[in-house]
Amino acid sequence: MGPGPSNVHPRVLNALSQPLVGHLDPAFLELMAEIQELLRHTFQTANRLTIPISGTGSAGMEACLVNLVEPGDKVIVGVNGVFGTRMVDIVGRCGATAIALETEWGRIIEPERVVEALRQTPDAKAVCLVHAETSTGAWQPLEEVGAALAGTDTLFIVDAVTSLAGAPLYVDDWHIDACYSGTQKCLSCPPGLSPVTFSDKALQVMRGRSSAVQSWYLDLSMIEKYWGDERAYHHTAPVSMTFALAEALRLVREEGLEARWQRHQRNHEALKEGLAAMRLPIAAQEGRQLWMLNSVSIPDGIDDADVRSFLLKNYELEIGGGLGPLKGKVWRIGLMGESSTPANILLVLTALERVLRHRGYDCRAGAGVAAAAAVLER
Amino acid sequence: MGPGPSNVHPRVLNALSQPLVGHLDPAFLELMAEIQELLRHTFQTANRLTIPISGTGSAGMEACLVNLVEPGDKVIVGVNGVFGTRMVDIVGRCGATAIALETEWGRIIEPERVVEALRQTPDAKAVCLVHAETSTGAWQPLEEVGAALAGTDTLFIVDAVTSLAGAPLYVDDWHIDACYSGTQKCLSCPPGLSPVTFSDKALQVMRGRSSAVQSWYLDLSMIEKYWGDERAYHHTAPVSMTFALAEALRLVREEGLEARWQRHQRNHEALKEGLAAMRLPIAAQEGRQLWMLNSVSIPDGIDDADVRSFLLKNYELEIGGGLGPLKGKVWRIGLMGESSTPANILLVLTALERVLRHRGYDCRAGAGVAAAAAVLER
Repeated sequence: MGPGPSNVHPRVLNALSQPLVGHLDPAFLELMAEIQELLRHTFQTANRLTIPISGTGSAGMEACLVNLVEPGDKVIVGVNGVFGTRMVDIVGRCGATAIALETEWGRIIEPERVVEALRQTPDAKAVCLVHAETSTGAWQPLEEVGAALAGTDTLFIVDAVTSLAGAPLYVDDWHIDACYSGTQKCLSCPPGLSPVTFSDKALQVMRGRSSAVQSWYLDLSMIEKYWGDERAYHHTAPVSMTFALAEALRLVREEGLEARWQRHQRNHEALKEGLAAMRLPIAAQEGRQLWMLNSVSIPDGIDDADVRSFLLKNYELEIGGGLGPLKGKVWRIGLMGESSTPANILLVLTALERVLRHRGYDCRAGAGVAAAAAVLER
Repeated sequence: MGPGPSNVHPRVLNALSQPLVGHLDPAFLELMAEIQELLRHTFQTANRLTIPISGTGSAGMEACLVNLVEPGDKVIVGVNGVFGTRMVDIVGRCGATAIALETEWGRIIEPERVVEALRQTPDAKAVCLVHAETSTGAWQPLEEVGAALAGTDTLFIVDAVTSLAGAPLYVDDWHIDACYSGTQKCLSCPPGLSPVTFSDKALQVMRGRSSAVQSWYLDLSMIEKYWGDERAYHHTAPVSMTFALAEALRLVREEGLEARWQRHQRNHEALKEGLAAMRLPIAAQEGRQLWMLNSVSIPDGIDDADVRSFLLKNYELEIGGGLGPLKGKVWRIGLMGESSTPANILLVLTALERVLRHRGYDCRAGAGVAAAAAVLER
């Protein structure tokens, strides 16, 4: 129940352990076509270039930026946590200038600030926002910015590593041009692949580049030839992980995307009520709190690492610590994909109550579980 | 039996299907330490920085080059196949100048040519050679070049994607400064990770850079902090693939590195004899032919793709086609890791004989199998 990797369905583990086929085997090429269709559904897009990159979510971030950003470009980046900070870093490595819209970690970047930044820098190559900031639990709204960018030359690049399949995301309707995710969050597939999707507008920008992409491994102009009709060899596809991703995406489709979102919502609400009954508020901005990643303020006098090792030792339960300015100040409780279950909610509330009471925190026995259960039984 | 991925041992498939743990879980950190030790043994090195990169072999190639090469550098690259060509491409994307030592595909780069190039360009940042050219089956000698580079400021970068654990490779003794491999060849682990090792000399060059590494994802100065004592989060490790790699490396150790090399040698010799009895010569330079990747000249009048689909359809047997100038001219038969077995040799010889005779090729029934069997029974 940390910030990922989430638990993996036995069917996905079983897919992982299938004997391999070659990466140009006809059976594998069929699987690639199926994955592309399933990913388009999951991203809610018709984008042709919708594929898994052969690396983790961070490789997807880098793939989107290095293929679209060139030296001298200006890129507006919302920075309210680890992943916006990382995008600024990569934009710099592209030889471009990042215009960072910073705000306190845990809060969103107000859409009007983004629109204003765009007014001041109308030649910005791209606007980058993190849909679900895994480091803080803040849920960034995207629609308004997407609408402002539609019809302009500026691209909309979105980090959906933690949101994909756990919260509404409409790549086409929201005018997102490049979107990347990870397999290990709400898709509940092991880490190692990064689904990405590029709009036609993004493809045009990519094709009109004046400089080579600085990464050979992530150069989508070559990778798309392997995933397209040419089947041209680029690098050996991670075959077993591709089996796993296909099965994970089938599970998403079987559950239904909207039903899956609703499950994440209900379980978040139950956890939040339970935590509130234990006087443990969610740390992220009220009204902008993610369903799949819950940042919890650590009470005064309670030691972060001590509690987390208690949970791990006694309950085999992992929750995340804070990063950067939130280190030691929050816990991060994931309710992602297969891990978003009533059983896990009751487990984490019970285990937290036990350790906090052991440590002298004033917390009525059973209050958290009772409050969560009431939501679950609604 | 193509150029990779090779078959995977059931124990490795089983490791893949274990339930996940977090990438900062104490149990996972222990596993990381074990993997580093096993990789050092496999690479025959004491290098501290010996880790798997979270991408395929090509990501390892890119990691070695982007961390060590800076804009303006000159880099000597042996080019006798796909992978030397790829290194030249990446060197260019680093803003450096590649000095390509080209030779016919299938032949090695004569070590004296490399030494001479180094004499002409003593300020070369690095010399890059491909130990086992998977696209041609040529086996590049490394010792002489390594000895010439020892004590100079020039780095020795070696592609061991296909050779590691299938042929002698002594990173330390041969003065190799940066070496990368893939998991899907002689290690017989699915594709998706790339073991790399950096010498102290390489680390010094990396630490003395004047420009940022162009890739955030592959920036080893950050990745080494996750694999070192700091355990600093960089990106989420591919947990399941890491389980698999550990098990694959344990299997290598159990078999014994030298015994594994010898197995690859004997099986290559058996296949080569069998092919010779069918008048199908190995296409790579005589005396420089790899044990794990056998390029076979396609006889006149025989259609490459037709034969390969026959093998796949009737025998579930995949062999590789040629790449670049060798397209349609050679087949590539892999005898890598778990796939390097007597059964596979008899299978491929029998199946090839069947299809070639169907297609009118003059080939005495059973000659190939008999010749191979004689070697196997020695």
